[in-house]
Amino acid sequence: MAASTGDLADRIGSANELAFRRLSAIEPVLVGVREARDAIPALRERVVLHAGPPVVTEALCGPIRGAILGAAVYEGWASDLSAAEALLDEGAIALRSAHDVGAVGPMAGIVSPTMPVVEVRDAHRGAGAYAPLNEGIGAVLRFGANDATVVARLRWMRDVLAPALDAAVRSLGGIPLVPLMARALAMGDEMHQRNIAATSLFCRTVAPALAERAPGPGLSAVLRFLAESDQFFLNIAMAAAKCALESIREIPHSTVVTAMSRNGVEFGIRVSGLGARWFTAPAPVVAGMYFPGFTPVDANPDMGDSAILETLGLGGMAMAASPAVLGFVGLGSMREALATTQSMREITLGQSPSFKIPTLDFAGAPMGIDIRAVVKLGIAPVINTGIAHRVAGKGQIGAGIVRAPLAAFREAVTAFAARYAAPAPVAGTE
Amino acid sequence: MAASTGDLADRIGSANELAFRRLSAIEPVLVGVREARDAIPALRERVVLHAGPPVVTEALCGPIRGAILGAAVYEGWASDLSAAEALLDEGAIALRSAHDVGAVGPMAGIVSPTMPVVEVRDAHRGAGAYAPLNEGIGAVLRFGANDATVVARLRWMRDVLAPALDAAVRSLGGIPLVPLMARALAMGDEMHQRNIAATSLFCRTVAPALAERAPGPGLSAVLRFLAESDQFFLNIAMAAAKCALESIREIPHSTVVTAMSRNGVEFGIRVSGLGARWFTAPAPVVAGMYFPGFTPVDANPDMGDSAILETLGLGGMAMAASPAVLGFVGLGSMREALATTQSMREITLGQSPSFKIPTLDFAGAPMGIDIRAVVKLGIAPVINTGIAHRVAGKGQIGAGIVRAPLAAFREAVTAFAARYAAPAPVAGTE
Repeated sequence: MAASTGDLADRIGSANELAFRRLSAIEPVLVGVREARDAIPALRERVVLHAGPPVVTEALCGPIRGAILGAAVYEGWASDLSAAEALLDEGAIALRSAHDVGAVGPMAGIVSPTMPVVEVRDAHRGAGAYAPLNEGIGAVLRFGANDATVVARLRWMRDVLAPALDAAVRSLGGIPLVPLMARALAMGDEMHQRNIAATSLFCRTVAPALAERAPGPGLSAVLRFLAESDQFFLNIAMAAAKCALESIREIPHSTVVTAMSRNGVEFGIRVSGLGARWFTAPAPVVAGMYFPGFTPVDANPDMGDSAILETLGLGGMAMAASPAVLGFVGLGSMREALATTQSMREITLGQSPSFKIPTLDFAGAPMGIDIRAVVKLGIAPVINTGIAHRVAGKGQIGAGIVRAPLAAFREAVTAFAARYAAPAPVAGTE
Repeated sequence: MAASTGDLADRIGSANELAFRRLSAIEPVLVGVREARDAIPALRERVVLHAGPPVVTEALCGPIRGAILGAAVYEGWASDLSAAEALLDEGAIALRSAHDVGAVGPMAGIVSPTMPVVEVRDAHRGAGAYAPLNEGIGAVLRFGANDATVVARLRWMRDVLAPALDAAVRSLGGIPLVPLMARALAMGDEMHQRNIAATSLFCRTVAPALAERAPGPGLSAVLRFLAESDQFFLNIAMAAAKCALESIREIPHSTVVTAMSRNGVEFGIRVSGLGARWFTAPAPVVAGMYFPGFTPVDANPDMGDSAILETLGLGGMAMAASPAVLGFVGLGSMREALATTQSMREITLGQSPSFKIPTLDFAGAPMGIDIRAVVKLGIAPVINTGIAHRVAGKGQIGAGIVRAPLAAFREAVTAFAARYAAPAPVAGTE
């Protein structure tokens, strides 16, 4: 028994070392902006992607439901929202978890076939990941808004913004994302609730190429859209993080978390050594900073694939990098921010060699969440998250810090033990 | 005698309160980009502005001399550099301290009549200040480079860049600088050796307006110039700081510093209650981080008007805001950065209500340097500075931290005592 336990610990150690090496070596590059159905074969007619673990139509939360209806009108599957509702309720719109097809989306996370998606590829391994373009703030599909303005903006993004960005990015030969994200981290972005530095750097990088490759009357509107959305880069960062974590998707014996995500009903995680299986717990309601006039009673439970950033060691895990985000998420002081990131070191394999935190004298962000440490220490990953109104389309009503539910990690540890700690098969062919 | 001393202390207290209120209330706005001779009447034919206190031709340091020669060719006063040299040495080119005419320039600080300057005006008081456009890095006039490439770039800046920026900025109704600078400070710029956030925010703000007001073949080059110069905003920040400090230029009894500047030979300060008079000491050689292959032997003594930023509480005074600049200027740790800013609190009147430092839980930058405190405590203001090669045109060879020479402050305190602590005039009409 003791020897067997030792063997298992060694195997886990080696597997996690491999996972950490891969995460450390990742070089995601933004290669272009494509139509989703071209990039993601699963996106056939009347299929939409959503955030979080898989969910059935009947269980959809308000904002995701609203966003699906908007997407149906945008795609022309229905002439109006009530026709869209009929379609959805009769089961004529199929739902897929974005994570299951290599994509991630913030909040509702809805991606329909003709929406543009950013394409991020690892420079070495070639593996790709996708995310929709960020729509800006206010009434937007990702919070379930679905009126004519929202649909018109989505069409403009498809017809004007996406081709312009694609031409610009391709003319640059792609944009390496690790250097840009590392620079933004040194400029106070934690890259989940704060992306103003990354967005500004991105904008400054693509603007000359936009002027060259997409001149004309649409150019100023494209540049204005980038200028007015401080979170534009969020979705690109999410695709970069997804790309990184895809590189460790199924390493036998690895206890490293490869996804944390929420569909507004359930919070789910995936673990490298356990492959595509989701381990879930009820999605928490966020005890955060609510905008004036709103309280937790108005809040939808936590939602979105954006916790992929924390899965890589950014967002709440890298809180110390972003003193400017503290007030927004409701943390009191720099001291607490430092303590938050330091406590995340206890549940991670090591420090990112790329993503450095200046306030910690350039120590790396805590990377590689180990389910064993989370369960053993009872320290759950910290996630910086936006809070959506539970009614579709009412939008963001706050932001705050949420802890990933420990129950999901406990379930994963149990499953891990069942799979790997069982008596060894006769011929050692496990 | 005691009552008289008390009176004086009260008067100084009131004067400094007024100075602090004015500095706190300043709202500098970038209103446009103009030809220098239109904005600054002193800039007649064959006049150039230079950084630092006034200096005579015979005493000029290498880089400033080189920059003047380049400006003479740029202006067409001389057909080549040797003709320019002859002109300068026969006294045919008049030198003015930029500070004396409401302008500031980094390093050599050379402004000649047809160069474009940014115009910054206070939204309330209307007072203006000017700075040349930043040329980027490498072989540039501000380090004394003066070959054909440098002159050609200056002409492109005059003919293409300046009109485009002017049209864009004016179409926006001007750009309020305090919000932009405050935001950049929260993104790790200290706004002297690090301006990447401010430059990126500025670029993102003007890009849509540039596309609208200056479309055409020059646009991508303009956007690329802004994209490739991380210090582009430095000169704008300097003009904003100069604009702020002009508001307290001559407040009787005030002991607040209104300028710190260097001409490569002398370091000078001005004090509100002592008006336009310079108090000087030899310019120090910077003990900083030298680029590979260079040592302090190669260094020109400290140079440039950019210490106007420290005069307002930014740059080295706000070191804690910029953990990412520490390595560049040779400071070892975040702890030292915090300590640096905290020690600057001892020699300043208070904290800026606008420029907040996230790592100090959003305490304001230390603002309003008091010559009495500097001399009494022996704590000299900290300046983050670039190091120029002493040979014209060899460019930047490092960066580092320099202390303003205490001797200049002692001289100012003595002059202050002579002016204000003299026996009161008979009728109290002082």
